[in-house]
Amino acid sequence: MRFASDNTSGAAPEIMAAILRANEGYERSYGADAAMERVTALVRDIFEAPQAVVYLVATGTAANALAIATHCQPWGAVFCHRHAHIAEDECNAPEFYSGAKLVLVPGDEGKITPDGLTAALASTGESGVHGVQRGMLSLTNVTEAGTAYTPAEIAALTALAKAKGIPCHLDGARFANALVATGASPAEMTWQSGINVLSLGGTKNGCLGVEAVVLFDPAKAWEFELRRKRGGHLFSKHRFLSAQMEAYLTGGLWLRLAAQANAMGQRLVQGLRDRQAQVPEAPANMLFPEWAAGKHEKLEAAGAVYYRFPAPEGRERARLVASWSTTEADVDAFLRAF
Amino acid sequence: MRFASDNTSGAAPEIMAAILRANEGYERSYGADAAMERVTALVRDIFEAPQAVVYLVATGTAANALAIATHCQPWGAVFCHRHAHIAEDECNAPEFYSGAKLVLVPGDEGKITPDGLTAALASTGESGVHGVQRGMLSLTNVTEAGTAYTPAEIAALTALAKAKGIPCHLDGARFANALVATGASPAEMTWQSGINVLSLGGTKNGCLGVEAVVLFDPAKAWEFELRRKRGGHLFSKHRFLSAQMEAYLTGGLWLRLAAQANAMGQRLVQGLRDRQAQVPEAPANMLFPEWAAGKHEKLEAAGAVYYRFPAPEGRERARLVASWSTTEADVDAFLRAF
Amino acid sequence: MRFASDNTSGAAPEIMAAILRANEGYERSYGADAAMERVTALVRDIFEAPQAVVYLVATGTAANALAIATHCQPWGAVFCHRHAHIAEDECNAPEFYSGAKLVLVPGDEGKITPDGLTAALASTGESGVHGVQRGMLSLTNVTEAGTAYTPAEIAALTALAKAKGIPCHLDGARFANALVATGASPAEMTWQSGINVLSLGGTKNGCLGVEAVVLFDPAKAWEFELRRKRGGHLFSKHRFLSAQMEAYLTGGLWLRLAAQANAMGQRLVQGLRDRQAQVPEAPANMLFPEWAAGKHEKLEAAGAVYYRFPAPEGRERARLVASWSTTEADVDAFLRAF
Amino acid sequence: MRFASDNTSGAAPEIMAAILRANEGYERSYGADAAMERVTALVRDIFEAPQAVVYLVATGTAANALAIATHCQPWGAVFCHRHAHIAEDECNAPEFYSGAKLVLVPGDEGKITPDGLTAALASTGESGVHGVQRGMLSLTNVTEAGTAYTPAEIAALTALAKAKGIPCHLDGARFANALVATGASPAEMTWQSGINVLSLGGTKNGCLGVEAVVLFDPAKAWEFELRRKRGGHLFSKHRFLSAQMEAYLTGGLWLRLAAQANAMGQRLVQGLRDRQAQVPEAPANMLFPEWAAGKHEKLEAAGAVYYRFPAPEGRERARLVASWSTTEADVDAFLRAF
Repeated sequence: MRFASDNTSGAAPEIMAAILRANEGYERSYGADAAMERVTALVRDIFEAPQAVVYLVATGTAANALAIATHCQPWGAVFCHRHAHIAEDECNAPEFYSGAKLVLVPGDEGKITPDGLTAALASTGESGVHGVQRGMLSLTNVTEAGTAYTPAEIAALTALAKAKGIPCHLDGARFANALVATGASPAEMTWQSGINVLSLGGTKNGCLGVEAVVLFDPAKAWEFELRRKRGGHLFSKHRFLSAQMEAYLTGGLWLRLAAQANAMGQRLVQGLRDRQAQVPEAPANMLFPEWAAGKHEKLEAAGAVYYRFPAPEGRERARLVASWSTTEADVDAFLRAF
Repeated sequence: MRFASDNTSGAAPEIMAAILRANEGYERSYGADAAMERVTALVRDIFEAPQAVVYLVATGTAANALAIATHCQPWGAVFCHRHAHIAEDECNAPEFYSGAKLVLVPGDEGKITPDGLTAALASTGESGVHGVQRGMLSLTNVTEAGTAYTPAEIAALTALAKAKGIPCHLDGARFANALVATGASPAEMTWQSGINVLSLGGTKNGCLGVEAVVLFDPAKAWEFELRRKRGGHLFSKHRFLSAQMEAYLTGGLWLRLAAQANAMGQRLVQGLRDRQAQVPEAPANMLFPEWAAGKHEKLEAAGAVYYRFPAPEGRERARLVASWSTTEADVDAFLRAF
Repeated sequence: MRFASDNTSGAAPEIMAAILRANEGYERSYGADAAMERVTALVRDIFEAPQAVVYLVATGTAANALAIATHCQPWGAVFCHRHAHIAEDECNAPEFYSGAKLVLVPGDEGKITPDGLTAALASTGESGVHGVQRGMLSLTNVTEAGTAYTPAEIAALTALAKAKGIPCHLDGARFANALVATGASPAEMTWQSGINVLSLGGTKNGCLGVEAVVLFDPAKAWEFELRRKRGGHLFSKHRFLSAQMEAYLTGGLWLRLAAQANAMGQRLVQGLRDRQAQVPEAPANMLFPEWAAGKHEKLEAAGAVYYRFPAPEGRERARLVASWSTTEADVDAFLRAF
Repeated sequence: MRFASDNTSGAAPEIMAAILRANEGYERSYGADAAMERVTALVRDIFEAPQAVVYLVATGTAANALAIATHCQPWGAVFCHRHAHIAEDECNAPEFYSGAKLVLVPGDEGKITPDGLTAALASTGESGVHGVQRGMLSLTNVTEAGTAYTPAEIAALTALAKAKGIPCHLDGARFANALVATGASPAEMTWQSGINVLSLGGTKNGCLGVEAVVLFDPAKAWEFELRRKRGGHLFSKHRFLSAQMEAYLTGGLWLRLAAQANAMGQRLVQGLRDRQAQVPEAPANMLFPEWAAGKHEKLEAAGAVYYRFPAPEGRERARLVASWSTTEADVDAFLRAF
């Protein structure tokens, strides 16, 4: 009944086993380890992107901030949803690394709409040297609201950005969950839909701490390496990052872990709806249900852990996140306590 | 015969076991894990510093850059040895995080001398608003040259800094090796000798990737936390950093690992001197021997791995680093191949 | 008929005469000139603020960016109107100097409302280390919409900020125009209403290029000086800044210049209203009238210069700004051509 | 007898007259004034550089910092003399604007030598991602020691830089004085000798406050404009910068003013040598004489103003700077008082 966040879970056994294997003997440091070459090959294969360049860091904030800084000038605007993680939960890291300004785009259910983006693009970058220039689009999938963009939705937004000449980033802290939720392929969800650079999350979905940044255009590779080092994000014993990401992407483990998380998310959605809770669209592993007041105390007394969210008078809201390690028994215990 | 760097070693078994144990069940994220409280208690006890505040990051560059940014204003000068890691090997990370300027102080064998520091302090910060202000002193122990400062040497330098009103940082990427080499206690080497903030290395000495920043004055604690997050260095599954550091500091493991590294370093020093190599002072686990030309090829053919350094005509120089995992057999094989 | 901006005017004769006088002989550089002492004395007297510290720079963007950087940490939020000059017209200078994030507050007619600010203050700085912290409030008077805050309105907003422990900045690029429009005294409009630091504009109101930053609390004085120098904004021949500001503040010149600008603004307002144009509240020297389509071409053909603004179908909108050098003849010619 | 600095002089009459003329009527702001076009044409003509792009700012620190930031990445090294103005007198402004690190190159009499630069280039940028990359060369002419590089000397240094693929900046705060001292043409001293970007000083040599940044390659033009605005260095009443620079460059005024300053510098050199003072090479308007102790008090009592410099026991040293406004009578009075 631990639904506070998918990052309160541990690491999957396969990941831990890979860490142990990686610990044998000596290995070159700072990303020159043999496993990193295999990671790159795996990403290129899985994403059908033979030119892609891949780098590993240990936190999602580092992945996002470095991806943005590498693609957006200090006088640029990063268009993102007003509740994006980069806007609300990274303590100005994107601004610190890039110097850019985040321009917040409204939109229901965590999604930027084409109309919203069109308006933001129109009102930014049209005042010469006085205002910020259009710099970049950053989307998040799974969104902060627990919804998922389809590739078509992403393509519609990136087309607007590209019409203005700016590149597109996807914050995929829960990228595997988005793939499972939509049935899209990695390529469809990214470069085939106009994404130039991806933060590919591992930590929330069963790793200890690793995120890949995938540059679909290799032109920025060296700059990224310098920015990573200058940010203090280049690991000396890099083999332990590589090992996680290699195991994660091998044999579909990442998708199996996400499938379990999503299935448990759906079991929560269904069970709560069956019990008269209102549950907005939540196709992946995160949901924001609302119910008649009085449940919070009861659930917490029974041992459930999750975030309370503000709700109207007489109502209660929650954020529940399932993870790769959530079991049917966890879900069912929660529903019984409800 | 892998002497390229102590960061080409893996993790010690005790550290790996702790990682495995830490993986049980759910745990609070972002540093609120129970193990972190134990780490803080361990550091306070070991350093005889009940007010100390401790934070964990995964790289030495992050530890140094954050420690410096927290103690030095953007218009300040960080006085450091001209070959300090922060000056030569961190791709401007200290400048990126702090905005400050590094003022390079000369000195033989990797050590700043009181005279050198006095001169640097005198020629900086005396031109009002035009030049940078005196900001901070940063020392490294074990130094980049493989030598070690004694507490008395550190105290002599920090006294000069404090006479000018500036705080003092110690880059202890190899802090345990310095303790073993000098016989000093953690307290003697740090706050009792005028150090305000310590980068306490774990990675090079048997961890996977963890460094502690120890603030002996808690006034800067919250600022440090914000800077860590803003730099993307706050781990969500922080338990895996805590587990490493807890195991490292428990029961003297860190000192045993360093003792092994240093012993193997001394075995190399002695063996090479026995074989007519010149070996400058090298009390810890890193040495820069010089020998008559012709050995590099022979040693490398035998499988030895290390860095070649520039040498005078007819001579060769090397950097050799022993680690916690270096064995007598490794050393003896190297000496036989010499 | 030049109404594009008050910065298309030249300098007032009294200012130019002061520049000429200041050119006599030799003078100490970098702000140590005798006239700067007189400027400080004038500001302290006029603002009834004997502790105030005053610094001069040459652009409004520099004044704002330095004032903000001196009062807001890099992890802080600057609350400002969504159309504030610092948000829309300074190409990220405030972010560049401070590292902070601008949090945009909505509000009609260019004014932040207490409700809007309360909501913004409530939704920022409540997520621990993850989000930005509350950093500062920045108001603009005259606002970007041409309206003016009264001291009571300012006090109501700063009280909300101070209840959260954050300081308050006033962007007074048109501060003299705001005083004239409201009848408030300099003290009432600033520190008596909770303002900690003021950008006091001179350029738009008859100077060549000078803005004063007034720190009502001298504790930040030295930091400001370092930031000004580090930003390249400390003039060597500083006497020419001092001379402008001294003449500007002497004998009420600044208020006479603003009174003329405002009077011409009001003459435009009245004349346009008499001719059936809609003119939103515009108590100072800037107005945004709207009229039936067809006037733009006619006015511009007659030689009028101003900015066109987007308008609904069948309508036209304009921004008109009067300055100290606008004459009744200018206004009347415009109205005749209307 | 005011020899403290050329920036304690006022503005030349021709410059002041231009300011007055520029004050007529209305003019477009932010660099769109007609005079700016004429300034660009003048620079292109004088420098025989029809592609050159020219921007104006008000301080030398701004000119240098912006020129460097536009040509050097944040992970780059700026090679400069260890006593360069950008290193010692700009309070980290170059680092603030660029993020880069200054690598200090030794050299007698304020000049970088080819050997010194070769060594610095060799020891920087050879450690992959760990150290800073080679970024830029920045020379100063007239140097901080009062000496002047010839075009051939500059070309020898820029050739070394270009062999490593990095661009070259010339800090010409006293550029006109260097031209007069060497007899070189503007083209010979800059692009024909490998200079990519020039800070062309006006302030010290008879302007109120204006410096031109000349980009000999227009590719960076738009980036420079954005950086200037983001730094708060774009003047709204830009006409007053243009007017100064136009008058300065028209009809050889800048060279006449520098010729007067240099002639007075030489009169000081000769007069002091005649009186047994030691005067190191000083071909322009700044000298660092040394004499037997006892003169400082006497000179200052007679009204002389200049900077004392540290000297060996029994000796005294001074920095004397002549300007466009220094007269023979000033010099002769000083020499009589000596």
